[in-house]
Amino acid sequence: MLRNQTEIDVRYAETDQMGVVYHANYLIWFEIGRTKLIEELGFNYAELEKEEILSPVTDVQVKYRKPLTYGQKAVIQTWIEDYNGLKVTYGYEIRNERNEICVTGMTSHVCVRKETFRAISIKKNLPAWHDAYEKNKKPKN
Amino acid sequence: MLRNQTEIDVRYAETDQMGVVYHANYLIWFEIGRTKLIEELGFNYAELEKEEILSPVTDVQVKYRKPLTYGQKAVIQTWIEDYNGLKVTYGYEIRNERNEICVTGMTSHVCVRKETFRAISIKKNLPAWHDAYEKNKKPKN
Amino acid sequence: MLRNQTEIDVRYAETDQMGVVYHANYLIWFEIGRTKLIEELGFNYAELEKEEILSPVTDVQVKYRKPLTYGQKAVIQTWIEDYNGLKVTYGYEIRNERNEICVTGMTSHVCVRKETFRAISIKKNLPAWHDAYEKNKKPKN
Amino acid sequence: MLRNQTEIDVRYAETDQMGVVYHANYLIWFEIGRTKLIEELGFNYAELEKEEILSPVTDVQVKYRKPLTYGQKAVIQTWIEDYNGLKVTYGYEIRNERNEICVTGMTSHVCVRKETFRAISIKKNLPAWHDAYEKNKKPKN
Repeated sequence: MLRNQTEIDVRYAETDQMGVVYHANYLIWFEIGRTKLIEELGFNYAELEKEEILSPVTDVQVKYRKPLTYGQKAVIQTWIEDYNGLKVTYGYEIRNERNEICVTGMTSHVCVRKETFRAISIKKNLPAWHDAYEKNKKPKN
Repeated sequence: MLRNQTEIDVRYAETDQMGVVYHANYLIWFEIGRTKLIEELGFNYAELEKEEILSPVTDVQVKYRKPLTYGQKAVIQTWIEDYNGLKVTYGYEIRNERNEICVTGMTSHVCVRKETFRAISIKKNLPAWHDAYEKNKKPKN
Repeated sequence: MLRNQTEIDVRYAETDQMGVVYHANYLIWFEIGRTKLIEELGFNYAELEKEEILSPVTDVQVKYRKPLTYGQKAVIQTWIEDYNGLKVTYGYEIRNERNEICVTGMTSHVCVRKETFRAISIKKNLPAWHDAYEKNKKPKN
Repeated sequence: MLRNQTEIDVRYAETDQMGVVYHANYLIWFEIGRTKLIEELGFNYAELEKEEILSPVTDVQVKYRKPLTYGQKAVIQTWIEDYNGLKVTYGYEIRNERNEICVTGMTSHVCVRKETFRAISIKKNLPAWHDAYEKNKKPKN
């Protein structure tokens, strides 16, 4: 099971008047982790879009445990939580500099044709991605 | 059970290169719906923060069914899905101009002291909010 | 000379840890003012993009005089500061509820083909827009 | 004259439906460059804010020459364009992977007390910053 680890500097622009990172911005960090995990798998999401295939989000779940603040470095871990040939679910864990878990989450994605926004089978249309997902996804107990 | 309805114009800045609203931005729309619902309840979140009480998000769930695009008007419905004296969960439904459900979601919140970020009882510390939540929350079947 | 006036509710997401609207977000408000001014001229920017013509920003200038905060309503005034057949410059003035000027600015735009990102003559390719710009632009002294 | 150079990966969230980085987001990149330059000077903006001193933007100017797209790496160069004891102006230049200049800009800043938002003299209140600005600012011809 592959687990990507990426460091993120908190941006000032990401804070809100609570003095902490605004909650919606963690979804952007999840995306950064996902992009890096996909690179580690040997693929590139920007290249996929050039073939007119998009991978929109269908589901998001986030749990916020501790706030992160400007000036801190965060580490995001990303893995493939689940995959069934059509839909892929990524898992995420964000820690602060003291290694405390701050935010956890999951996002699910399908692949669609850009023109129609209709879901297509990853297994059938992107066999190399399919193999990589199968090989690196979290094992079922 | 109170159900606030608020109209939102899609902003150009809210789109991404998929040509649709970027998925994290719906959390911002949820917040707008929440703010308006709270106003309908007779309160004001900005005033609450002046008393050094914040209401951070603890959990988010979103389901994306249909994308929204720039130039469209969206309608967001917001209600109190659940409340237990300590935590409040809002429910959301976003529809497009054809009245199709595009995005649904829930967010949970506690109240904390600004200084400590420690959760406080809404029932005890904000009795007027407590009564309003109790009176207007979604009935249990 | 046309002068559009649009009201904007400050969004919580637009604040930063200074407790005021984050400075980059005023560019988004400028865009909202511009969109509304264009509608008042009888056009629609979303429709223009469907014809594969984009109108990217080439220059931005902003002056920040007073901060705006969450809970406030802002009013943005937008007008056509200058136009020469190729480039259009919009002017903006944002006021708070006490009618104090908080932010002023200008943005310049050309039109480009989506495929090439090469500038095209507005006068030649969009004669109706050209006429509207000429008729409604700020008079030279 | 100090010139900081920082690499930035374009984030998907930073694009808009034109397929390029949304113009307001370059202000966020300017801020990243500024933060890194300040670190190179031996200071830390997050620490400054802990002393209840903020450094809001008073003026922004940006020129957009070439769009940047998702999947690209950008390099931002940041320097101290001007400084007079009260106000500091940073200069910025953003280049793409082919070393083409894409965006240039300037931002001016004063220091204010958090409580009052009134400008204070940097020379008088932050003598170490003053010296660093004087030593590293762009020489006048």
